[in-house]
Amino acid sequence: MNYILKDENALYYECGYSCDNALFLSLGDEKFFLTDSRYQQEATETIKDATVIIERDLYKKANKIIKKSKIKKLNYDPKEWSIFAFEQITNGLDIKLKAKPDFSHKKRIIKSHQEIELLRKAVRLGAKSFDEFAKMINRYGFGKDEYELTYMAKTALSKYGKRELSFEPIVAVNANASKPHALPTKKTLTKNDLLLVDAGLKYKRYCSDRTRTVSTIEGFGFSNKQKFKSKKIQKAYDIVLKAHDNAISKARSGMKAKEVDALTRDIIEKAGFGKYYIHSTGHGVGLDIHEMPYISTKSDTIIEDMMVFTIEPGIYIPNEFGIRIEDMVAMINGKIELL
Amino acid sequence: MNYILKDENALYYECGYSCDNALFLSLGDEKFFLTDSRYQQEATETIKDATVIIERDLYKKANKIIKKSKIKKLNYDPKEWSIFAFEQITNGLDIKLKAKPDFSHKKRIIKSHQEIELLRKAVRLGAKSFDEFAKMINRYGFGKDEYELTYMAKTALSKYGKRELSFEPIVAVNANASKPHALPTKKTLTKNDLLLVDAGLKYKRYCSDRTRTVSTIEGFGFSNKQKFKSKKIQKAYDIVLKAHDNAISKARSGMKAKEVDALTRDIIEKAGFGKYYIHSTGHGVGLDIHEMPYISTKSDTIIEDMMVFTIEPGIYIPNEFGIRIEDMVAMINGKIELL
Repeated sequence: MNYILKDENALYYECGYSCDNALFLSLGDEKFFLTDSRYQQEATETIKDATVIIERDLYKKANKIIKKSKIKKLNYDPKEWSIFAFEQITNGLDIKLKAKPDFSHKKRIIKSHQEIELLRKAVRLGAKSFDEFAKMINRYGFGKDEYELTYMAKTALSKYGKRELSFEPIVAVNANASKPHALPTKKTLTKNDLLLVDAGLKYKRYCSDRTRTVSTIEGFGFSNKQKFKSKKIQKAYDIVLKAHDNAISKARSGMKAKEVDALTRDIIEKAGFGKYYIHSTGHGVGLDIHEMPYISTKSDTIIEDMMVFTIEPGIYIPNEFGIRIEDMVAMINGKIELL
Repeated sequence: MNYILKDENALYYECGYSCDNALFLSLGDEKFFLTDSRYQQEATETIKDATVIIERDLYKKANKIIKKSKIKKLNYDPKEWSIFAFEQITNGLDIKLKAKPDFSHKKRIIKSHQEIELLRKAVRLGAKSFDEFAKMINRYGFGKDEYELTYMAKTALSKYGKRELSFEPIVAVNANASKPHALPTKKTLTKNDLLLVDAGLKYKRYCSDRTRTVSTIEGFGFSNKQKFKSKKIQKAYDIVLKAHDNAISKARSGMKAKEVDALTRDIIEKAGFGKYYIHSTGHGVGLDIHEMPYISTKSDTIIEDMMVFTIEPGIYIPNEFGIRIEDMVAMINGKIELL
């Protein structure tokens, strides 16, 4: 199958190297990696099974290579290409262009054993950085605002993740946690606050993702056993944890993604908090922080062995508090394994 | 003029708020900011002169709004839109779609006084973080590898920049500095090494960008006065610094960008290092780290007052060393002002 790719992680998946200005072409038996002179040394040293081509204008060069190849059909992902870039690449080509949305993500939905080990390692380093963050807060985090706490979280994550983080960590106190994607505020942390932390790091380009919601009593840690002073918060917390554990114990390969979603949603709805659970149960994770499968109420995707995704139910009461508990899991031999 | 935007910084420029899932529509006298429920609270609190609309499917909603508006022509940036998204938004519309490459960047090429002050502040905080990084290296950086040094650089930058960094910092020792966009390696830092650091932070979303190449003698700092043990390195360094200073003292408003480029390139070429200067002289900086104007050998763009860009000549000798000196400047009253 002939195809063209541009996304940095899609390229890394194809040939073990990528950078922020590159294209990948697979045409018949031939593969080409196009980049500019800044990346020549690293690209030629790393890439074994594609021809590395150094050019200033990658789009024009790709156009020439496709013309010369005499292929009749080219697959591309319409989500990956800007209108501008694709027009330059396909300018004057007399071939069939076939749109394949999520082309690379679909290839990557089933992980290899090696990929699962890399993701497991990322998750374990991510967990260590949560422990480190708890230590830092217990030592000198009280009285600090969410900006400073976010910076502390990044310091803890960077200690274990040598490349960039999976995403900008979310560190939210009390009412600010009611926004699932909260930005930091001047709100400072005090004892017995509710603290939500959603953060991940990368290990050899593979992402970790984890959320914990905790009560900041003296010497607290990021385990799932939490005691909140407020009965209302405790009730919501126990429901979210039950929903999380239910999906992890009962999800099976062969289920539809929406059936896995229902394993968390039914519990939260039955407890009367359905309208405060304002997002999906989870998403796939790999080289990208958001990949397939999407564990949502509408997805008919069949969950299969060797898929990796998050289970992250939540309850968000506007202006009061938010709770989310998230873990990354793999479907192995028909059952969920916590990574 | 009717237009539609998607890029996070383009949206911020239009209405002082943005997030990672939003669209902006300017249709006749009406302006619309579309986002999802996760950002409702922040968007409605911040945005004053556009109607905030909360929706799950932004593309479908934009399509409906455009249909209802009865406009006849819509401008869009073909670099900003994926084929997939734009097809959804324009599905069934009977209007003229006008491609305007770099629509938002063109609007932003001339900075306001307020923007120049924000950029100046970003640059000054960025310079402070370089000083902090030098202190850290002098105290405990020798013997550390490039991964650890990159992490230290990020710690120093994070101390002064509360939001994300402008980009992943480049910290390269000796031969690794010969790659202009070097990735970290296991190479450790020792005394009298060549160290190249290219890093920036954001202040209120505006980027800083700076590069220094230094000799790591006892108590070194990131000033432009550097003494290298190797005569070859010192010669190359002196040429790069001369090229850098020449552009800063001689660039004038009214010049073409390629004439500004020649102010650095001529000096490096005359010294016989032309083939080792493998990139352009500089690029604009603002909300994005790479904006217009591009100071390249091919650009006919006229450099005007209130433009902000980098001057960053370099010499890169493969497998030996690389040198780059970069500063951000503004064209003010016809002359270059160092930010």
